Amino acid sequence: MNGNRFGRLFQVTTYGESHGDAMGVTVSGVPAGVELDEEAIQAQLDRRKPGQSMITTSRGEPDEVVVNSGVQDGYTTGTPIGMVIQNKDARSGKYEPYVTAPRPSHGDYTYSAKFGTRNWGGGGRSSARETVNWVAAGAVAEQVLDASDHDVEIKAHVNRIGDVEADDVSFEQILEHSEENDVRCADPEAAAEMQELIERYQEAGDSIGGSIYFECRGVPRGLGAPRFDGFPSRLGQAMFSIPATTGVEFGLGKAAVNVSGSERNEDWTFDDGESFDHVESEEGDPVPVGNDHGGLQGGITTGEPVYGEATWHAPTSIPKKQRSADWETGEEKDVQVVGRHDPVLPPRAVPVVEAMLYCTVLDFMLLAGRINPDRVDGNPGQYDTDYHPSSPDNE
Amino acid sequence: MNGNRFGRLFQVTTYGESHGDAMGVTVSGVPAGVELDEEAIQAQLDRRKPGQSMITTSRGEPDEVVVNSGVQDGYTTGTPIGMVIQNKDARSGKYEPYVTAPRPSHGDYTYSAKFGTRNWGGGGRSSARETVNWVAAGAVAEQVLDASDHDVEIKAHVNRIGDVEADDVSFEQILEHSEENDVRCADPEAAAEMQELIERYQEAGDSIGGSIYFECRGVPRGLGAPRFDGFPSRLGQAMFSIPATTGVEFGLGKAAVNVSGSERNEDWTFDDGESFDHVESEEGDPVPVGNDHGGLQGGITTGEPVYGEATWHAPTSIPKKQRSADWETGEEKDVQVVGRHDPVLPPRAVPVVEAMLYCTVLDFMLLAGRINPDRVDGNPGQYDTDYHPSSPDNE
Amino acid sequence: MNGNRFGRLFQVTTYGESHGDAMGVTVSGVPAGVELDEEAIQAQLDRRKPGQSMITTSRGEPDEVVVNSGVQDGYTTGTPIGMVIQNKDARSGKYEPYVTAPRPSHGDYTYSAKFGTRNWGGGGRSSARETVNWVAAGAVAEQVLDASDHDVEIKAHVNRIGDVEADDVSFEQILEHSEENDVRCADPEAAAEMQELIERYQEAGDSIGGSIYFECRGVPRGLGAPRFDGFPSRLGQAMFSIPATTGVEFGLGKAAVNVSGSERNEDWTFDDGESFDHVESEEGDPVPVGNDHGGLQGGITTGEPVYGEATWHAPTSIPKKQRSADWETGEEKDVQVVGRHDPVLPPRAVPVVEAMLYCTVLDFMLLAGRINPDRVDGNPGQYDTDYHPSSPDNE
Amino acid sequence: MNGNRFGRLFQVTTYGESHGDAMGVTVSGVPAGVELDEEAIQAQLDRRKPGQSMITTSRGEPDEVVVNSGVQDGYTTGTPIGMVIQNKDARSGKYEPYVTAPRPSHGDYTYSAKFGTRNWGGGGRSSARETVNWVAAGAVAEQVLDASDHDVEIKAHVNRIGDVEADDVSFEQILEHSEENDVRCADPEAAAEMQELIERYQEAGDSIGGSIYFECRGVPRGLGAPRFDGFPSRLGQAMFSIPATTGVEFGLGKAAVNVSGSERNEDWTFDDGESFDHVESEEGDPVPVGNDHGGLQGGITTGEPVYGEATWHAPTSIPKKQRSADWETGEEKDVQVVGRHDPVLPPRAVPVVEAMLYCTVLDFMLLAGRINPDRVDGNPGQYDTDYHPSSPDNE
Repeated sequence: MNGNRFGRLFQVTTYGESHGDAMGVTVSGVPAGVELDEEAIQAQLDRRKPGQSMITTSRGEPDEVVVNSGVQDGYTTGTPIGMVIQNKDARSGKYEPYVTAPRPSHGDYTYSAKFGTRNWGGGGRSSARETVNWVAAGAVAEQVLDASDHDVEIKAHVNRIGDVEADDVSFEQILEHSEENDVRCADPEAAAEMQELIERYQEAGDSIGGSIYFECRGVPRGLGAPRFDGFPSRLGQAMFSIPATTGVEFGLGKAAVNVSGSERNEDWTFDDGESFDHVESEEGDPVPVGNDHGGLQGGITTGEPVYGEATWHAPTSIPKKQRSADWETGEEKDVQVVGRHDPVLPPRAVPVVEAMLYCTVLDFMLLAGRINPDRVDGNPGQYDTDYHPSSPDNE
Repeated sequence: MNGNRFGRLFQVTTYGESHGDAMGVTVSGVPAGVELDEEAIQAQLDRRKPGQSMITTSRGEPDEVVVNSGVQDGYTTGTPIGMVIQNKDARSGKYEPYVTAPRPSHGDYTYSAKFGTRNWGGGGRSSARETVNWVAAGAVAEQVLDASDHDVEIKAHVNRIGDVEADDVSFEQILEHSEENDVRCADPEAAAEMQELIERYQEAGDSIGGSIYFECRGVPRGLGAPRFDGFPSRLGQAMFSIPATTGVEFGLGKAAVNVSGSERNEDWTFDDGESFDHVESEEGDPVPVGNDHGGLQGGITTGEPVYGEATWHAPTSIPKKQRSADWETGEEKDVQVVGRHDPVLPPRAVPVVEAMLYCTVLDFMLLAGRINPDRVDGNPGQYDTDYHPSSPDNE
Repeated sequence: MNGNRFGRLFQVTTYGESHGDAMGVTVSGVPAGVELDEEAIQAQLDRRKPGQSMITTSRGEPDEVVVNSGVQDGYTTGTPIGMVIQNKDARSGKYEPYVTAPRPSHGDYTYSAKFGTRNWGGGGRSSARETVNWVAAGAVAEQVLDASDHDVEIKAHVNRIGDVEADDVSFEQILEHSEENDVRCADPEAAAEMQELIERYQEAGDSIGGSIYFECRGVPRGLGAPRFDGFPSRLGQAMFSIPATTGVEFGLGKAAVNVSGSERNEDWTFDDGESFDHVESEEGDPVPVGNDHGGLQGGITTGEPVYGEATWHAPTSIPKKQRSADWETGEEKDVQVVGRHDPVLPPRAVPVVEAMLYCTVLDFMLLAGRINPDRVDGNPGQYDTDYHPSSPDNE
Repeated sequence: MNGNRFGRLFQVTTYGESHGDAMGVTVSGVPAGVELDEEAIQAQLDRRKPGQSMITTSRGEPDEVVVNSGVQDGYTTGTPIGMVIQNKDARSGKYEPYVTAPRPSHGDYTYSAKFGTRNWGGGGRSSARETVNWVAAGAVAEQVLDASDHDVEIKAHVNRIGDVEADDVSFEQILEHSEENDVRCADPEAAAEMQELIERYQEAGDSIGGSIYFECRGVPRGLGAPRFDGFPSRLGQAMFSIPATTGVEFGLGKAAVNVSGSERNEDWTFDDGESFDHVESEEGDPVPVGNDHGGLQGGITTGEPVYGEATWHAPTSIPKKQRSADWETGEEKDVQVVGRHDPVLPPRAVPVVEAMLYCTVLDFMLLAGRINPDRVDGNPGQYDTDYHPSSPDNE
């Protein structure tokens, strides 16, 4: 069964199970000529890595990425980039109780129902561990965007855990503060409360839900294809692909239900060269006077920042006693998921959300011809002797 | 620019602009042998049709569908079904003021920024009129599902307009009552209030937002492909493709943010042959004891009903005075959208939501091999002389 | 069952059966701003039309194309172009004998085996009539190429029928002479012999095979994606999709079997600004000194003309007495296909070959970023007030 | 730039360059429950491996495949199979002369023109080394087919090198004798002559062309999608993707040009239960009395063996002195490709052709619902406790 690919022109293909030998991702559609910093890829994986704090699983994966192809002398060649991340700390023994008795509300049963087999170690391919591949792909996408003549900035932070809500913060604040605490919340006070709340659930053998706010600046106007490949359509697919997402919103989101057209609609004015720095527009361009529309009108970007929110339900793997049905014995039984698990998802999902945003934005850039698909700069069709010369001396 | 296709194996391709000559949809991937009722397709179009009540636009489109191919003697042949719906009541004159001055928060500007041209009549391809094609495709998908040996039931209703919320209603109530009022809300009292509310906004030259609850019963367990093609991923894409959607939720949705794992997780028990009629399972199967998971675990169906909610912002075309920026004159100016427009979207979006659900569910059925892609019954690879015989006498 | 789509970014989707109501094609991926000449599309359909000469079927189809969408004031809008061609002269009665007894070597049986049903009128969707859609799509692709700043010329002619071979002719001769005779062969003497040969087979109630030579000039260097989407890979798919093709060759083709590397390899020299007019290169560029490679090295274009050949077997529908097996009676029986059929395929396949070449070349141009996918000229992302203005006065 | 994927439901994605760190292939769409023999995959790689005889390149690659995912306890899990093959014997030094002077008729120049960069080591991604990935994928496809209840047999052999043609041999002879000599020709006498011929070219510092005959038995009737995804369309794409292919034919191929309809057409009779063992049909089924159609009618399989031929031009990398144009110096210069290269391609292309046939046939089987996409046997949607049980004891 398929489902392991994302993107039209920036094509991500992944493999790997939680307790298999290795995770792998192939990124096809990277233009040639991008100086690729492998340490920057690793840095993104480190942000998603398990065991980075007390409120994440203690599984000890180094998550070291190896780049097998698509790069020569530090520059991309236009051919696919194959990356592999070995699994080093899988301990399947802890999963024995669930081999024939599915964990409550986890993907255990549905995967078995689908495939007629039981990849029981760590949840197999249904595990969130698989998103390590996505983060690697997103880190490549980010570098392609950086190498282009566009200035796209993408950032997310945790804006709610349980009943603790962060204050509204500016994009600049998110950039500055969101990585300063383990929760990845840019409001330090709320972050402290969230941390406390999470620990309380953790100590109780339980878990809790949360949500993430995300924003993309510098996305050029005119991205998104009509109808089924609109910007929110593709981004909706991307966000709902992240494990345990239960809601996705753009702009006013769900709150738009009780806002009138006259309130929500934004008049058009002209960019005066001063007041619209955060908008991707030039002086004299028509610009909307606000951004309740979340940077999207008719499914296509306006040049205003694209922003929204996604919700994650509480992790299903909890130590608290629950009941399951053992299909081998035909009996119900108590289960306690005592493996190494996250008590909350958004803190580790932040880099995943950002990765999917990078992949999606880059894909739309390529689809709209804003970045050349063959080489990130220069004129295609003409060999340039000065273009990232690769000679034996360089080796 | 692309974006005019939906589905992997049940492939929908559409064309058409609001004020163009005709709308058209090609449905490829329909198995042979389905008795296709063209009147049933028409009946679905009639549900979406403009002018059907006081709270919809008064544009007078008959929306008569013509089936050009893929059917012989009333049965599908396995080849693509091409359908055309002529546009009959386009009045572009009313759009003159917006030719060089975009309507606030509409897709006018973004389409122009993308294509460098201005398809000003009725919003061109960004118009919600385009969903007439989707409803035609969904009506075909529904009939394919009905012809299979699965018993899938899909229904949606409006559960909120502005600040008026419907009571929680059962699926049976939705089936029975949702079409009894113009709002398409299965709670009659709330429906009356909603109607009143909408009319108030309408009279004020304004518009208002709303939301739809949807549910799919009888969806077999095991549908949805791992990761990027999970059931919620594809459905998320489908829902966010519907114009003016600002939020999509599955199961507890956004409310999951403040629910603990122990509360949300559902124990497994065994189907006792009595209590799980609404679940797609057999006696003795493991079944979850509740459905806070919305029929989805690990992105794959559990056999429980799949349900969720989507939010629509208020229609942007309103008679109230607004400001726009005329890029020809370089001046701002007042605009009043006096065409024929809907004061609220969910009532007409209900058949669109259902259509996208039918298309998505069928696509997953085909992808998972639950419905044969070549012929809906019988053994492929063997001509059956009794199989929907088509002889000259039948003509 | 799918199979009704061609192209990655220039996406062609078709429907229609030989004796259905209408043929239809949707072309998605046409940039905005192309002045679209509908008469030029019609002119291409007329070249493929049945009944155009004594050596084609006498079926009297006017093949009038109707453009339903994607065009405003004569210019493309960037949205999909839907086209419909009504079937006017289907006479299914003649096909009665074959309802349960397949015509020898036709697609009758295989389609029935696949779909379990029998779309007997005129061969249903397996009919070469379906290529009318492809020619319409190709005519659009041709106009997009013409509107770009590339100078691509594509032409094909019949170079062999039965044992009559045309002399080698230059591209200029093909352009000038191939449409001067009913056979569409640029060598007038061979054309006359071919005509005579065809008529001889026709009179004998039989049919005969033939082949087509094709050439594309002005194709920029660097087109074609590595490996599975190489230029010859996609073109191979395109050519083998044309009904009754049994062989496809590029460059030396099959003759390369007995040519050594040193003979076939072409040295590199520099374009001296004079001798390489037929090559897509600039003075000083490395150019190969010959073109045995058919414009393709490593699956990617060199700038030299891309050329090749394709072979068609004799049409299977012949009046001569043959035997079939009637699956209803369980008896063998004599059949004589007395409908209106072509005695040879290449003359009418010439416009189909050219259409598939146009579609493929344009698709590769879009994929390589050589033509902007959103608008054929101008800067995307910026509305241009002078850009094909469409105002109410134009109506 | 893309192009690194093959297949609709059996999806092959590859990466890797000739002198990069590793080659890799991800195979998505493998049903669960297939007992996967990794040694059998290795055995196929060994057949393609360089250095296996005097008439192949002496590059010393062990080509050891590592399976990273998709398998548990020896059975496939339904999730993608990631495989990696390290490059061990790349010696880029030999390629120094060609860094700025392309080898004649190789992909050197076209890749550089496309990507603006020069992946000079061993031809980079344009190298035939990349087909090691395809052979790994094909070996998986073969095992899926073997695990199904279909009995598909695929085999190819070299039927011509230069002017030496093999006698016509039966499928049984190909199965028995084609691997008995280094040329992989099932006619031993011709094989000896071919070997001699190749050595003669090799000694002269030259190379020569050749062709391969291929045949697929047991392919069920009804495979192949109408029009653009017909069986020959997809197979044509597959074959032309193999480096250096210049011609592809099915059935009579190019020879059909001079065969009349009455000669080529095959009457229909009924399978008498005896004479049609080589055909995929049952007693009483209509069957064609011959197979000039190559198992394909209307682009769909008839149940007769599918057969055809493909031609490879002589390898372009030859020690003989040639001229190239150095774009750095602006001067022409002599080049001699003294690396380790094959003097002829078909002997090593045989396993590649077979691999592409396996992949294509399996993909069509999945598309036509003949093999369940989720699990190769059993009823999907129902967990089977006896189904390839995987318990901790097995570890």
